[in-house]
Amino acid sequence: MSQAQLRIDAANAEVWRRIVAGRPRLVDLRPAREVVPGLGERTVLHAGPPLAGPHEISGALRGTVIGAALYEGWAETSEAAARLLDAGAIELASAHEHGALGTYAGGISPSAPVFVVRNEAFGNLAYNNLNEGRGQALRYGCYDAATLGRLRWLERVLAPLLADAIRAAGGFDLLPIIAQALHMGDECHSRHKAASALFVNQLAPYVAAGADPAARRAEALAWLAANEIFFLNLTMPACKAILDAAAGVPGASVVTCMARNGARFGIRISAFPDRWFTAPVAPVEGAYFEGYGPADANPDLGDSAITETLGLGAFALAAAPALARYMGVAPGEVAQFTERMYPLVLGEHPDLTIPALGYRGVPTGIDVRRVATSGVTPVTNSGLAHRAGGIGQIGAGYVWTPLACYEAAAAALETQDFG
Amino acid sequence: MSQAQLRIDAANAEVWRRIVAGRPRLVDLRPAREVVPGLGERTVLHAGPPLAGPHEISGALRGTVIGAALYEGWAETSEAAARLLDAGAIELASAHEHGALGTYAGGISPSAPVFVVRNEAFGNLAYNNLNEGRGQALRYGCYDAATLGRLRWLERVLAPLLADAIRAAGGFDLLPIIAQALHMGDECHSRHKAASALFVNQLAPYVAAGADPAARRAEALAWLAANEIFFLNLTMPACKAILDAAAGVPGASVVTCMARNGARFGIRISAFPDRWFTAPVAPVEGAYFEGYGPADANPDLGDSAITETLGLGAFALAAAPALARYMGVAPGEVAQFTERMYPLVLGEHPDLTIPALGYRGVPTGIDVRRVATSGVTPVTNSGLAHRAGGIGQIGAGYVWTPLACYEAAAAALETQDFG
Repeated sequence: MSQAQLRIDAANAEVWRRIVAGRPRLVDLRPAREVVPGLGERTVLHAGPPLAGPHEISGALRGTVIGAALYEGWAETSEAAARLLDAGAIELASAHEHGALGTYAGGISPSAPVFVVRNEAFGNLAYNNLNEGRGQALRYGCYDAATLGRLRWLERVLAPLLADAIRAAGGFDLLPIIAQALHMGDECHSRHKAASALFVNQLAPYVAAGADPAARRAEALAWLAANEIFFLNLTMPACKAILDAAAGVPGASVVTCMARNGARFGIRISAFPDRWFTAPVAPVEGAYFEGYGPADANPDLGDSAITETLGLGAFALAAAPALARYMGVAPGEVAQFTERMYPLVLGEHPDLTIPALGYRGVPTGIDVRRVATSGVTPVTNSGLAHRAGGIGQIGAGYVWTPLACYEAAAAALETQDFG
Repeated sequence: MSQAQLRIDAANAEVWRRIVAGRPRLVDLRPAREVVPGLGERTVLHAGPPLAGPHEISGALRGTVIGAALYEGWAETSEAAARLLDAGAIELASAHEHGALGTYAGGISPSAPVFVVRNEAFGNLAYNNLNEGRGQALRYGCYDAATLGRLRWLERVLAPLLADAIRAAGGFDLLPIIAQALHMGDECHSRHKAASALFVNQLAPYVAAGADPAARRAEALAWLAANEIFFLNLTMPACKAILDAAAGVPGASVVTCMARNGARFGIRISAFPDRWFTAPVAPVEGAYFEGYGPADANPDLGDSAITETLGLGAFALAAAPALARYMGVAPGEVAQFTERMYPLVLGEHPDLTIPALGYRGVPTGIDVRRVATSGVTPVTNSGLAHRAGGIGQIGAGYVWTPLACYEAAAAALETQDFG
């Protein structure tokens, strides 16, 4: 093995040390404007690498931005909101570049309440908004009255109550919940039934003892109990908080971020923490809700691939046979997804294990060199939204991410001079 | 096929119809003396078939009865309680014969709060006490101060609060929780992490809006969130409520109850609803906690085999790879347990499915004829308690139940004249 390769291996060992030491903890919940660094007053954060221009605004993202503008009161009608967007009067920025994440299209605007997750081992922070539940939702490009009403309820009713509970509890460690959920049929991306239920169990005592009126406490807990995907928006910043701490190791070839903006898929690797390697998004294979098909689908979108970047989601599909049908896979095939990822990674996460694989750890630490030479690319789960803004989710599936990004990152590493 | 066999098949079809129509619902929580039919004031209900005499009182059951006597105030010291038991001044009765269940040794006494579960399809009721959590517990024969203190807390703090919540909610359907938990890594006997969490999620809004002081609401929800086996004592009466409604079909060869009293294992079949077919208990194969071994184990005990009687527990082990280690099985072997049970049963329960087996229903409706001719007997999970009362749980495992019971029941059916 060459000196250069050995140097990369040594750098990756440091990345590995940081990843497995990560300890993400939910420590606060605040309006985005109070905590997200560098967030402008007329900014909406979107998923994926920065947009190359307005031509990259997919239909679902357009709906999301219109919804955010209505929610913020920047416009009174969807037409007026669209005119603002087309006039360049709304700044669109990559959530990842602000320490945050866009679930599906994203849509974090200054008033949106965001979870604050701190990696206790390294002190770095990550942010995500509250999950709105399945069906019609801002993140899928909806801006109907029910979606906007729910956003206001999240901001005015749920968020203050949750924030009080989080502070009363002194925060909640997220990795143990994720680890337990992997033993309970979640892959911790598209399926979060167990993690959400476990989180509500931990939260409920603090809500029950909170200062809010009884009816409001009950309303909040009933809503949380019914939202089986709520914890996705906590797994995502947990993964980002872990992986961000592993970014910036000179020469390291490990992927610290995978994300899609509705036009391009992009990765960042530890050696180049601020550089995106992108390629056009690949098509989503999956299962459509009744009445929809591939022609209706928005191009792949969302920062939720941060879960696969740590080894969850499609990488941990062996843990989630009950998810298979939802994403158009046979229950007996789930283990193959996980097994195909092991050759691409540094190792098995010691704290995130899959009982059905004999407690093997999830495949963690994607090495662009291994991806580039194997020809197999990382697989990510994905929701499917309608390509026209305002319609919402139409299915779910998975994507084999484009090889070109990994090849480009590997090539960039080879040509680097680390002196 | 003979006329007699065809008559049995027709009777079993009626049993099947009743089993799959069963809709168990938690409707109340009351002191046992208020609801359990025929419960004497100095009675303790035990698991399994009725004891043939004092010689069948195993060490763990002895500890449980001593604990119940102390809890009820029948005696001031464990020595005095033991003297009462030995003098015949405490009546021991089979829980099943009173519509109730003994989890492990049992120990339901008149003051114990019991869940009331109604089979909404048929109107029949079943009862079980509250699960005390893992470790030291009355059901494992403990009667130390912590165990007795917890029983009083359950009675005075938790039960009134839970009862208020159950009534405020108008009850809780149990089958959907069980069905969901099977998709989340529970087999719904030895593992109830998911079912317990889902139940607390449903319960929490009513507790949070309840009239109890805030600190008490929080204490109750925190305790429930920490008790991962709490729902066992709801799955059990859910199964009993379903199976009791299927009892009493003339000529039917389906097992409606399996239970162990610490000396004998017994079954009842639909054709003979009041008759026990028993045999000496078989040894438990399993995994012992550090420092214990087979010589320490109490003989097999408990009514929790009612879960296997419906097709859960060891019958559904394919759903629970994360349970395997706890019971001394390799995670890769769990499906074999389930697959070995299909030849013994009438069919697959349509509402209780296992994603990892391609959504096959759990094996339901044990037919004593099939058991008697196959030579494979139903397998049940089991906790392991120390054979000396007062020590508690020392491990967990599984038992291949004794063939003689099924052979005897099959023979009794053959010699019946159904005119």
